[in-house]
Amino acid sequence: MAARTNKLWRLVKRPVGDVIEGALAYEEGVAVPEVKDGQVLLRTLFLSLDPTNRIWMSDMDQYMPPVELGQVMRGFLISVVEESKSSKLPKGSIVAGVGGWQLYEVSDGASYGIINPNPKLPLDAYLSAISMLIGGTAYFGLLDIGQPKAGETLVVSGAAGAVGSLVGQIGKIKGLRVVGIAGSDEKCAWLKNELGFDATINYKKENVSEALRVAAPKGVDVYFENVGGKILDDVLGQCNNFSRVSICGLISGYNASAPIPGPYNFAQILMHRIKVQGFIVIDYAARMGEALQEVEQWVLEGKLKYKSDIAEGLETAPTTLKKLFNGTNDGKLMVHVSKL
Amino acid sequence: MAARTNKLWRLVKRPVGDVIEGALAYEEGVAVPEVKDGQVLLRTLFLSLDPTNRIWMSDMDQYMPPVELGQVMRGFLISVVEESKSSKLPKGSIVAGVGGWQLYEVSDGASYGIINPNPKLPLDAYLSAISMLIGGTAYFGLLDIGQPKAGETLVVSGAAGAVGSLVGQIGKIKGLRVVGIAGSDEKCAWLKNELGFDATINYKKENVSEALRVAAPKGVDVYFENVGGKILDDVLGQCNNFSRVSICGLISGYNASAPIPGPYNFAQILMHRIKVQGFIVIDYAARMGEALQEVEQWVLEGKLKYKSDIAEGLETAPTTLKKLFNGTNDGKLMVHVSKL
Repeated sequence: MAARTNKLWRLVKRPVGDVIEGALAYEEGVAVPEVKDGQVLLRTLFLSLDPTNRIWMSDMDQYMPPVELGQVMRGFLISVVEESKSSKLPKGSIVAGVGGWQLYEVSDGASYGIINPNPKLPLDAYLSAISMLIGGTAYFGLLDIGQPKAGETLVVSGAAGAVGSLVGQIGKIKGLRVVGIAGSDEKCAWLKNELGFDATINYKKENVSEALRVAAPKGVDVYFENVGGKILDDVLGQCNNFSRVSICGLISGYNASAPIPGPYNFAQILMHRIKVQGFIVIDYAARMGEALQEVEQWVLEGKLKYKSDIAEGLETAPTTLKKLFNGTNDGKLMVHVSKL
Repeated sequence: MAARTNKLWRLVKRPVGDVIEGALAYEEGVAVPEVKDGQVLLRTLFLSLDPTNRIWMSDMDQYMPPVELGQVMRGFLISVVEESKSSKLPKGSIVAGVGGWQLYEVSDGASYGIINPNPKLPLDAYLSAISMLIGGTAYFGLLDIGQPKAGETLVVSGAAGAVGSLVGQIGKIKGLRVVGIAGSDEKCAWLKNELGFDATINYKKENVSEALRVAAPKGVDVYFENVGGKILDDVLGQCNNFSRVSICGLISGYNASAPIPGPYNFAQILMHRIKVQGFIVIDYAARMGEALQEVEQWVLEGKLKYKSDIAEGLETAPTTLKKLFNGTNDGKLMVHVSKL
């Protein structure tokens, strides 16, 4: 049998601002190590591209160690177990978890879990919606951190993003008034017409504060934050007493090359007794089954809609990632690496 | 009987920055209205001077309506019921609550509650420690919002202030490592030598970040925030995963005449899953008995020490209040208005 060769992206430089390309170096023809006892050989099917990739590339203080220079870039994957010398992950299993931007991986598979994809759904649904990183984040960030009560007003930024669009739809399932903030009229129309959001704000065209007064006339009870910056400030300014701000992401700051200030409306946290809480979905790993089962059911029932934006080929990963930061992706961004 | 005349301070201008004097106008010889059915005549014994007074003077978005221009300035008081046509507040009762910067008040007394001061303690203890505004704030802000666990590290800013000094001492009662940040060597020495704080930082002389690394070598689990600004940023930068920041006050910003940015370390809230929560002690009114009974007991046992800084005469109130903002007060600031 011919020796397998790998292809992969290594982090070779910490990016500055949004100049990501030079930060990653592509390699082909790398030998794949032999599978030892307790190990598996995984072949990547889909590589998920997410805001957190940009965090891992930097050496900012973060929730996991940053990727070391010279190492394979880290990512979330759906893979198939091609060979197995581990009782935990039998050959042929479909797994999801944290791995590298590469075609093959030989490891103990400890960072992966078996998924049992429903044959009625395409496999990419298990990165776009029914995944820890997307469905799990939306579910726990809204319900556990945001503690919404039926009849309250929920505002979501990055609302047309993979997480944001699920947050808004779960909000509707839970009986909330849902306002989405997104960056184009097309995105806003999708949120309102397809996903059932009550109101939307195109932050690139509208004054967010003024538009929010109309869209959320009773003020904001739960804010699900994906972006940070000026939008966070505008929404904080209209947060009700005892409102909850669930900090899921601050993407507007990830590419910053100089320190950026926190919200000018920070004192509102005191005046309106706001709870601002950050969370990272991996903290909910133990309760993920509960969430993803419900999310899968909602997807099957058509209550949760999602979009996948799939680029072809591992070599496109860095340029594809950039779409996240300029907002040109149309759905959950991923790379199709190899066929099942 | 000669008609009683009042003396009082009215808010006549919104202050800009820390120029408070011209904002208040003093009047003497004002007639005191007759006491009608259901009303009481209160005579002020002590007027409490607090950071929140400055908030009420401004028209910033806040937790109560601001004081209207032309109205008597609002304050916390200890008063005696001089005449009563109300069954709720019998003549001779000592009461504490929200009233005006004035000698006499005729009202229904709804914003006051009867206190039963322990004869072993001076009456000012019921403004300096055993009060909703001080003891209640320290108690609920630390224990309810901060959720400290024995063995954790607590940092308190404004540590030599009335609230901060109680917070640190309650922290010691609860088995925490307590670090106090204050503005002079004398204050720091008092915190360490008299109140039992484990470590102190003089923010006017020391680099807070560097000093905090030494004072809180395991990082910060609970931060009780009284000041905001640069110190908040420095402490946020050393907050542990799942730490809690209890926002009690942001005094450094109350006098600001231009918008001030939030902490540059805001993204730490996400990375370290920090909970930042504002609170106002009046939200805990229903549970105040529970807190103040325990605080009084701790004071009687000598476990909670406090200092009162008492100015003489209502006419000194505005100039006395300024001490809060330049940090020259030595203990809980109040004005002695009239004798019991």
